[in-house]
Amino acid sequence: MRASYFRISKTLTVCVCQFIRPTAAFQSALYSSDAGRIFEAESKPSVAVVGVGAVGGYYGARLWDCGAYDVKFHMRGDNFSQCKKNGLDVKSVHGDIHIPSDQLQAYTDTSEIGKVDWVVVALKSTSLNAIPSLVSPLLDPERTRIIVIMNGLIENDLIKMLKEFHGENVDDEELNFCKALYGGMALLCSNRVAPGSIEHSFASLLSYGVAAHSADTTVKESLDNCQEFWKPVKNVETRLELSLLGGRWRKNVWNLPFNGISVAMGGITVDKVVEDEGLRKLAYEVMDETIAIANAELEKHGYDSSLFLGDEDKEKMFDLSDNMGPYKTSTMIDLTERRPMEVQYLFQEPLKRARSLGVDVPHLETIVAQICALQKWHGLF
Amino acid sequence: MRASYFRISKTLTVCVCQFIRPTAAFQSALYSSDAGRIFEAESKPSVAVVGVGAVGGYYGARLWDCGAYDVKFHMRGDNFSQCKKNGLDVKSVHGDIHIPSDQLQAYTDTSEIGKVDWVVVALKSTSLNAIPSLVSPLLDPERTRIIVIMNGLIENDLIKMLKEFHGENVDDEELNFCKALYGGMALLCSNRVAPGSIEHSFASLLSYGVAAHSADTTVKESLDNCQEFWKPVKNVETRLELSLLGGRWRKNVWNLPFNGISVAMGGITVDKVVEDEGLRKLAYEVMDETIAIANAELEKHGYDSSLFLGDEDKEKMFDLSDNMGPYKTSTMIDLTERRPMEVQYLFQEPLKRARSLGVDVPHLETIVAQICALQKWHGLF
Repeated sequence: MRASYFRISKTLTVCVCQFIRPTAAFQSALYSSDAGRIFEAESKPSVAVVGVGAVGGYYGARLWDCGAYDVKFHMRGDNFSQCKKNGLDVKSVHGDIHIPSDQLQAYTDTSEIGKVDWVVVALKSTSLNAIPSLVSPLLDPERTRIIVIMNGLIENDLIKMLKEFHGENVDDEELNFCKALYGGMALLCSNRVAPGSIEHSFASLLSYGVAAHSADTTVKESLDNCQEFWKPVKNVETRLELSLLGGRWRKNVWNLPFNGISVAMGGITVDKVVEDEGLRKLAYEVMDETIAIANAELEKHGYDSSLFLGDEDKEKMFDLSDNMGPYKTSTMIDLTERRPMEVQYLFQEPLKRARSLGVDVPHLETIVAQICALQKWHGLF
Repeated sequence: MRASYFRISKTLTVCVCQFIRPTAAFQSALYSSDAGRIFEAESKPSVAVVGVGAVGGYYGARLWDCGAYDVKFHMRGDNFSQCKKNGLDVKSVHGDIHIPSDQLQAYTDTSEIGKVDWVVVALKSTSLNAIPSLVSPLLDPERTRIIVIMNGLIENDLIKMLKEFHGENVDDEELNFCKALYGGMALLCSNRVAPGSIEHSFASLLSYGVAAHSADTTVKESLDNCQEFWKPVKNVETRLELSLLGGRWRKNVWNLPFNGISVAMGGITVDKVVEDEGLRKLAYEVMDETIAIANAELEKHGYDSSLFLGDEDKEKMFDLSDNMGPYKTSTMIDLTERRPMEVQYLFQEPLKRARSLGVDVPHLETIVAQICALQKWHGLF
């Protein structure tokens, strides 16, 4: 078993779904009705958000909006200059948020932020190898917890990179550079439409699981900590994944068919996939293949079949997709705007695992061949 | 067994490959060295070419050029008016041909042509149901032979349509409206680049087999007749298919991967497929699936396994494709120029047969779903 996966007792429930609604008393402690926000950074846990795009910008703004945290944002280029000028703007079906420029703590260098309690990393997986040097200044081994809200089967490589960066033995199960590392799976329709401007149109589920932790804590404690962290945050549905591996694959049940077909077809929106009889069937077939790889890998790592993925996961993803409208998947936008595409961790890694597990995935294989060709022709690495 | 397929004695060789080179004596009988072409229409077998595009224009010009036939062309619209003005122009790697307008017998109505010895039909399969009324005025049941040089598994439907049009019993094995109906498979790189203007860049193989014939002849006689018909034609390599069904599938071994992937990828040329590692592998996989359907169907119709398709067919098609350069497949041009695409007979019919034969073809299924979606969105029926 790899250090990044954990067997969970069969007696625990698979997941905890919750809509977090802070009490009125809690809210009134954070806001005064006429004087606006009470700014009490010193007494609050500190959070650094690294990567303020569609995902980091959305969850970062929600973390700021709840008032429970001292949130600092790491951003660069146009995003930084626009936010410094006009603040960060999130238009959301779950309620708009605007962080005025004079209240937005934006930094272009993480060493200016210093050590924090929580690091939320929401970069594209194409930037994976930039993460160790970026987050290193933020880490206090005694207290920092990192949650990586990203796509793809990234944990094996990320943990290895972080350990190597901090001079730790890559074969150790435990981490020394931080208290815990979480994988986060965002299931939300959010796009960064311009520098400093995010539009969120549908869903906001954030599920998370433990990738690895320090020697002086446990998976259970780490999960509890993360659950506490998200508790004050309004309008974010969270789900605790007792198996991060299962969670990653559950996210893939959406990503592989929908990011996959949207890109393989040259850049189409989700409604085009679900409304076309043939592509809808193809999406189901890619889902079936994804679940087959997932369950083979869960089995290989010793998980009980009660944790396996199944038809319920498939139908849930289709229900969501049927209600998404003309949503542009992240990889589709990368293609149409000619930006680096998350091909390696999102598409090639699942295929690689399918091959090593002996799972036949011809539909997925076909669309991944097409995606790789598009990536190569347009140089989107 | 359907009327359109024929079992062939196992002792016959599978195919006859030939490069036709008319003798000098034969040529001198058709041309005079100083006075140009001897026009002796009355004494020559008559040919009507229906559909003067990339394929019909090319083979029609070769039939005219050899001088052995009185060739009449059925064409319409811009093609007709351009040809009436400037003639028909074929630029070919195997030698250019120009039919001057004063020597080009062009008609917009087949009833003006009257009955002929041979009808060469080279329409797109999207026009299949227009064929009976178009060719009917050309047919003398006592002497007319029809060769349909088209893509796709068309024969079942075409024979039914022609029989119904001529009031014949569709369940009869024999035909009454003509002497023989042949299926022709063109493996050549030819495009109609403008009205009256054809460019031929590579290969010129024409294979043919018997689809059905009248009661007073046999498959063997019919094949001999067709072989004689093409004998005088210069620079056209012909191959006789003892099983038309096998020939159709052999053509599909190229069409399904190359027309298929070129369209599924939104319109790419053949070089892009063969030069990309992933798409090349995909083309091989689609070929394997095509051969699996082919052999299942040949087996079902009682053909001996010596007639089955195999690796040799696959490698031949790849050798050809590796030398094609940036060739635009016909279906790719249909997509990019927003013209009706040959989806039904070229892609859906093979899939339908795979399903009824219980052959699993997931790679083909994936690209056909994509092609159907593109066809629907752009209304290319």
